[in-house]
Amino acid sequence: MSPFTPTERTQVRRLPNRGAYDAETIFRILDEGFICHVGFAVDGQPFVIPTGYARSGETLYIHGSAASRMLRTLAGGVQVCVTVTLLDGLVLARSAFHHSMNYRSVVILGRAVQVEEREEKMKALKSFTEQVVRERWNDVRLPTDAELKATTVLALPLSEASAKIRTGPPKDDEEDYQLPIWAGVVPLAIVAGAPVPDPRLNPGLEPPPYAKKYSRQRP
Amino acid sequence: MSPFTPTERTQVRRLPNRGAYDAETIFRILDEGFICHVGFAVDGQPFVIPTGYARSGETLYIHGSAASRMLRTLAGGVQVCVTVTLLDGLVLARSAFHHSMNYRSVVILGRAVQVEEREEKMKALKSFTEQVVRERWNDVRLPTDAELKATTVLALPLSEASAKIRTGPPKDDEEDYQLPIWAGVVPLAIVAGAPVPDPRLNPGLEPPPYAKKYSRQRP
Repeated sequence: MSPFTPTERTQVRRLPNRGAYDAETIFRILDEGFICHVGFAVDGQPFVIPTGYARSGETLYIHGSAASRMLRTLAGGVQVCVTVTLLDGLVLARSAFHHSMNYRSVVILGRAVQVEEREEKMKALKSFTEQVVRERWNDVRLPTDAELKATTVLALPLSEASAKIRTGPPKDDEEDYQLPIWAGVVPLAIVAGAPVPDPRLNPGLEPPPYAKKYSRQRP
Repeated sequence: MSPFTPTERTQVRRLPNRGAYDAETIFRILDEGFICHVGFAVDGQPFVIPTGYARSGETLYIHGSAASRMLRTLAGGVQVCVTVTLLDGLVLARSAFHHSMNYRSVVILGRAVQVEEREEKMKALKSFTEQVVRERWNDVRLPTDAELKATTVLALPLSEASAKIRTGPPKDDEEDYQLPIWAGVVPLAIVAGAPVPDPRLNPGLEPPPYAKKYSRQRP
């Protein structure tokens, strides 16, 4: 079975033409995002927690404090769902009913395993930083052994995943197209403002290019 | 018990000074957002699905097709977690370890109930549109009875909720402040581009102000 053959659980059922299962599409969405929502259940109660992530090959890494309840729960090998959503626009139709949003999302199901090996852990930490701000890793003070120990890194294999995508203009009922109502798309994007220097910054340090011209667009 | 007294399940444990439980803070975050991530479990497998929402008073509404698997599952009264996350900036510290993000998030736990009553359902549909694009409701072709019937609306009481917030500059280890590494915050915001008219738009229709100058800032 190829990694992204839809399973009973990842097959997009509602509006199946919005579903996508090819690795390129899924990786591209994961690479443009950097915040995921992690879902897990404790005694039947689901929890959904936002956190950073990094994709590296066919693995999605998440991390956090070794003291984190979420990470300790997930490290126990429970079933998890990780969802990444990129919002691209508001779809304003002529009817209230057909209003929608343009988005690209990926849903990953599976069980995470804890990364114990020092080298893989360090590599994952680099991926987290690079997923958010490329080229930052070369500039920072690298993790110490104590910091590595205080950080839990979990690896979720990208073996059961699907994407869902909506693009393009509104789809109105045929008889509504004649109505004198403006319809179209308001594009949305995450945009960076001018970098705000730390109040305690050493004088004379200029923001690096990746902070001055930060962008989520990926080539 | 006041609505947002932290419970065993909503108490923020890691970095408790980031927790907030007052209604004003929680409502403000919910009102600025319009995408939530809904978590529910089926046979122990959690699912996390992005969808629109609306807050109205002490109720959070979500909606979708009556055929949606998620909505049918939730309408059955299962335990649900709804999370709303607003991303405010990237926190670039001197050490890799202290990199972080500025964000505001709300986690709501509970069980949803299906809205059956026609008037409340219509009011909820208005809230969905207004949550995303204020003043749009007055311009659109309103839902028909058939559309109302095809739409499932669920109400989740805002009775067990908490907010988590990080703001401000990086917090580095004291000895790292002397390092010659730029540190600070890259602010992020969702920004609207110029509206894209529907290719089938009737000639002469200009985009309304809420589409031309769309903003998520709330007064």
